[in-house]
Amino acid sequence: MPVADQTLDLFFNPRGVVLVGASGDPKKLGYGTARNLAGGEFSGAVHFVNPHLTGSLFEREVYAAVDEVPDPVDLAVVLVPAGLVPGVLRDCGRRGITAVIIVSGGFGETGPTGAALEAECVGIAQELGIRVLGPNCIGIIDTHLGLNTTFLAPPGPEPGEVAFVSHSGAICAAVIDWSAGQGFGVSRLVSLGNQADIDEVEALEMVAVDEATRVVTMYLETVAGGRRFVDEVARMTKPVVALKAGGSEGGRNAVVSHTGALAGREGAFEAAFRRAGLIRAATTEAMLDAARALAWAPLPSGRRMAVLTNAGGPGVAAADALEAGGLVLAELSEETRRELAITLPDVAGLANPVDMLASADPKVFARCLGTLVSAPEVDGVLVVFPPPPMFTADQVAEALVPVIRSSSKPVLVAVMGGRAVGNAIEIFRASRVPDFPFPERAAAALAALADRTEAVTSVVDVLPAPGDVDRSRAAGLLDGASQGWLGPEEGVELVGAYGIGAPPGMVVASADEAVEFAGALGGELALKLYLPDVVHKSALGAVRLGLSNPEEIRAAYAVLADLAKRSATGPAVIYGQSTVESGQEVIVGGIRDPHFGPLIMFGSGGVEVEGLADVEFALAPATGSDFEYLLAHTWAGRRLPGHRSVPPGDAAAVEEALLRLGWLVSDHPRIGEIEINPLRVLAPGSGAVALDVRVRVHP
Amino acid sequence: MPVADQTLDLFFNPRGVVLVGASGDPKKLGYGTARNLAGGEFSGAVHFVNPHLTGSLFEREVYAAVDEVPDPVDLAVVLVPAGLVPGVLRDCGRRGITAVIIVSGGFGETGPTGAALEAECVGIAQELGIRVLGPNCIGIIDTHLGLNTTFLAPPGPEPGEVAFVSHSGAICAAVIDWSAGQGFGVSRLVSLGNQADIDEVEALEMVAVDEATRVVTMYLETVAGGRRFVDEVARMTKPVVALKAGGSEGGRNAVVSHTGALAGREGAFEAAFRRAGLIRAATTEAMLDAARALAWAPLPSGRRMAVLTNAGGPGVAAADALEAGGLVLAELSEETRRELAITLPDVAGLANPVDMLASADPKVFARCLGTLVSAPEVDGVLVVFPPPPMFTADQVAEALVPVIRSSSKPVLVAVMGGRAVGNAIEIFRASRVPDFPFPERAAAALAALADRTEAVTSVVDVLPAPGDVDRSRAAGLLDGASQGWLGPEEGVELVGAYGIGAPPGMVVASADEAVEFAGALGGELALKLYLPDVVHKSALGAVRLGLSNPEEIRAAYAVLADLAKRSATGPAVIYGQSTVESGQEVIVGGIRDPHFGPLIMFGSGGVEVEGLADVEFALAPATGSDFEYLLAHTWAGRRLPGHRSVPPGDAAAVEEALLRLGWLVSDHPRIGEIEINPLRVLAPGSGAVALDVRVRVHP
Repeated sequence: MPVADQTLDLFFNPRGVVLVGASGDPKKLGYGTARNLAGGEFSGAVHFVNPHLTGSLFEREVYAAVDEVPDPVDLAVVLVPAGLVPGVLRDCGRRGITAVIIVSGGFGETGPTGAALEAECVGIAQELGIRVLGPNCIGIIDTHLGLNTTFLAPPGPEPGEVAFVSHSGAICAAVIDWSAGQGFGVSRLVSLGNQADIDEVEALEMVAVDEATRVVTMYLETVAGGRRFVDEVARMTKPVVALKAGGSEGGRNAVVSHTGALAGREGAFEAAFRRAGLIRAATTEAMLDAARALAWAPLPSGRRMAVLTNAGGPGVAAADALEAGGLVLAELSEETRRELAITLPDVAGLANPVDMLASADPKVFARCLGTLVSAPEVDGVLVVFPPPPMFTADQVAEALVPVIRSSSKPVLVAVMGGRAVGNAIEIFRASRVPDFPFPERAAAALAALADRTEAVTSVVDVLPAPGDVDRSRAAGLLDGASQGWLGPEEGVELVGAYGIGAPPGMVVASADEAVEFAGALGGELALKLYLPDVVHKSALGAVRLGLSNPEEIRAAYAVLADLAKRSATGPAVIYGQSTVESGQEVIVGGIRDPHFGPLIMFGSGGVEVEGLADVEFALAPATGSDFEYLLAHTWAGRRLPGHRSVPPGDAAAVEEALLRLGWLVSDHPRIGEIEINPLRVLAPGSGAVALDVRVRVHP
Repeated sequence: MPVADQTLDLFFNPRGVVLVGASGDPKKLGYGTARNLAGGEFSGAVHFVNPHLTGSLFEREVYAAVDEVPDPVDLAVVLVPAGLVPGVLRDCGRRGITAVIIVSGGFGETGPTGAALEAECVGIAQELGIRVLGPNCIGIIDTHLGLNTTFLAPPGPEPGEVAFVSHSGAICAAVIDWSAGQGFGVSRLVSLGNQADIDEVEALEMVAVDEATRVVTMYLETVAGGRRFVDEVARMTKPVVALKAGGSEGGRNAVVSHTGALAGREGAFEAAFRRAGLIRAATTEAMLDAARALAWAPLPSGRRMAVLTNAGGPGVAAADALEAGGLVLAELSEETRRELAITLPDVAGLANPVDMLASADPKVFARCLGTLVSAPEVDGVLVVFPPPPMFTADQVAEALVPVIRSSSKPVLVAVMGGRAVGNAIEIFRASRVPDFPFPERAAAALAALADRTEAVTSVVDVLPAPGDVDRSRAAGLLDGASQGWLGPEEGVELVGAYGIGAPPGMVVASADEAVEFAGALGGELALKLYLPDVVHKSALGAVRLGLSNPEEIRAAYAVLADLAKRSATGPAVIYGQSTVESGQEVIVGGIRDPHFGPLIMFGSGGVEVEGLADVEFALAPATGSDFEYLLAHTWAGRRLPGHRSVPPGDAAAVEEALLRLGWLVSDHPRIGEIEINPLRVLAPGSGAVALDVRVRVHP
């Protein structure tokens, strides 16, 4: 599919390139870029501009100004002092150049003055219809086009199938250099720098349209694009593997609710990446390992993996690593075992891991692998071998490659060793078989393949809002609300507008009113004191339950009224509520993330919610697979069907409440945080009710 | 310190070696071993024996029998068919050879017949005073002695400071080959094979006495030595880094209690390794990374680390990885920042990570590193750099090495890249500076150093049993008990003998007895039905609480009696118990592990204990740091001081109960499992009481 903005196509498809700030001094960056532009395979025109330089550079005339450069020129690479960049942008505009890479630093990354200059440049670019990559970036590379606008010392990356988009220029340099030794290459590379204009979403489009690119890798420090990024990754047919840095960052000061405190920033990223089907790597190494596997190996149709080895120890290590990566050791059928037994000696291990023993020769390797990839109960195979004592690793590689290449299932290979396995590794790489030095890394890459399968096959359609949600009633309530926390009645009414029920309740202004209300209700009464900005009511003793007669009600009211008087946090209300039959209790919440917008949260509620941290997040509105995920990945969800003496709860009602809450927070941007804690879950078929609703309204 | 058994010294210090089963056929293992023995630097005598071979092999005479080999011979390497090994052992015995390595396979690993042959060999060895390594192993290597009894194709490992002990011969081969490319070498290597005689504990002694060895690495599939292993590792002055395979194994079928189910095998290993101060690596790569750092870098005095980088992105990745490894980003003092500011440009990042920017030259690298290693608030430094654009990585390495070598704090270096950083890596390795290709791996190695510091400095003395424990009363109780579960009164009496209190209670044979008992107690009564092999009483409805009058008691008794009648699991008893004031509830348990013996468990109890899995284990009897660990690493422990509306509990009483329970299970081997669930923790100073005690007695 094409890039949305045609100008973006010019970056990787320019008829001519001009470097503004070319230099003849090998110590200057402008020299490095000139060298890389002139010295590559790029078949388009390459021009240099520098008013202070006369004569030629790399056998090309150096022009004094952009105006003088002959046609055609579609792309400018700018490497002049920051203060001169606005002028160069105007030069480009006059010349009709609409694709500009600003390599120069000295902008937003240096402070307010630089940020102002950056804003000025963006303004000029927008005025002139120019798209800008950078500033403060190292530019782009297209190995198949032979285009390299970076100043990095040669050699550049080898041509390959993995694109790389990065917020860090330094990591670009490291990845290029590192990948060269690993037997796989780069297709396109984009260094985003300050991303004053082009952001990671557009960069993703720019590399994904490339036919040579099979996998996109990303180093992300943030995701400024938010939902656009999620949608783009989800829409793409090529897998994206990303390393997200800054997982340790805080930024929780502004949030008050449990949901907010637990979300931090990671909750949002996890939810967004899951929705996008993005494969998140834990380390740079793991990202590149996964990328190579995705580029070279077919996807498995499931998670059942076999391990084939000539050594027990490494086989066990592989099995451990597979399970740690969420994969399952395939249970080999009688038929498969019988077939293996024909090839293997009696004392070999026919269970999974299949241990062929050290005596296995290359033919045995090949035959056993053939059996495993043909077995219907096996979705993929991890072959783990130190060099067999009596054969070389090369011989094993030669025997395995034809089996692997003709298999429709992924086979990854951990060749253990150094000098003795070098040739074998070359043989595997030449045939595009992903090799790894240790079984644990191979297992992690295999898990990435299975994750990709799941992302490709899982339904990501957002579930529509139930027909009975009353958007205008909720909007009316919020319109009338001032910034801050809603009162208990308004909170209940708000969730009620979206079909989430609560027990009958009312604000009671006196003990008499409380007694009267209890009489009208019948049954026991609960009294709760609401203080602004106090989330942990029960910690204050501000919740009184099971009040069954007027005396108890009056006494409890007096205690709460006294507590309200002694509290200095602002106006307080006392809320009377009907008592609800018992059931499991969970927390459901919603929050608005600055990048990704509305999120929902589900997990174990009560006073220990933050201590246990048994919660998960999803983007709102949510999909059916989000609900499955939330319930499967929390203890609160896993116990919903009942556990020991805990009776079963209405799991469907919990999903329903999450769906409604997700739509509520999505439909109404003024809701900053919303939290139902607890949501009491009644017996299956009986629903769930909100016992306490806290809503924070944004200005 | 010397090896306990002097014979073990002979393995690595033989005056002469004989290979029984030397072969002239390059396809035979006996050829490889002969080649390695003859071709190395080993200065002692090397002799070959093979009755079917005449003439010489590798310029050495081949003898027909061990008897014919001239003096001196201290070590025999045996590589003959399994059936011939007993005869060879007798030959060795006659010849006075007491150190024998059996390389041959065909023993216990092949099934019952092989196991019988192995047992026969062990019997002969014991009779003749022979110590045996193997069978089914690849033998030993001492690079400094030039001794290599393996059949592995050359080159052997480079001489170095890291010893390796392995249950897997294949992993030995892989580690040797892999380590060669990593700039560090091996000192001694021991392949344990079936460890019919010498086990991993003695092997550890054998490599630890070596002066060249600074770090011991281990590949463990099990720890047959149990407590001896723990004691040996704890006693050693050299660090041990181990990869324990088989974390995914099950083996939980035989256990019935929560404690047993949660312990699995991993609980015991974790507890044992923590007590030993062993550093557990997650992967083979991480083990070797940690070993190299431990061999080359000084230990940090704390966990506060600084990151020094010339690139923002990798700096962030490093910071993330440090925190993930349990390290802390040091907060740099005003003074340190001032000093950095003198060296760095205005726009550099002076917070931690310290971002020198891409323009940093080698001198700036060195000066900033000097500042950081001198800062009292910094315990260690991680330097992360892709090659700076204007300088080579070599130049940076040359500038950094003197600072690193003269520092008493650890400095690890992540040099990002491949071809462009090869020379820099050589420079670092030549100066014994640990280098890593990615910041995440360097951070993990730095965490291993900090873990080692903690192991070295933490007190590991077991806390003595309180003076009031009544060992003979407990022993008497257990002597009289038959195999299976103790009744509720016996359970309470058993823990009571060790000073753990329980509320008054008695088995009641009728409703009348229950009413009478309640009358004597005053207050509310609880009635519980005990059925053999039913752990989850409350799940059955077998617990009735808060019975405040005779009618309630009679009704509850009738329900329980009926339940008992309908239950088919065996004889049942009904236990009446006084009601206890409220408080936090925890689980404390004890279990006997087949390898490591008595363990204690602590965590969140109640019906959700297995769902939450909020528990940790320690070896029993336990140390003060074990108690700290148990309370710090469980939510049950963290909330003991009080949390929100949860009032504080008597944490000291919990530690006291754990101490007493640990001694109870340690002192009495017939206790297979014991569990107090819940232990109710009263207000600080008020103690804790066992509300339910389950004890399983072994035959």
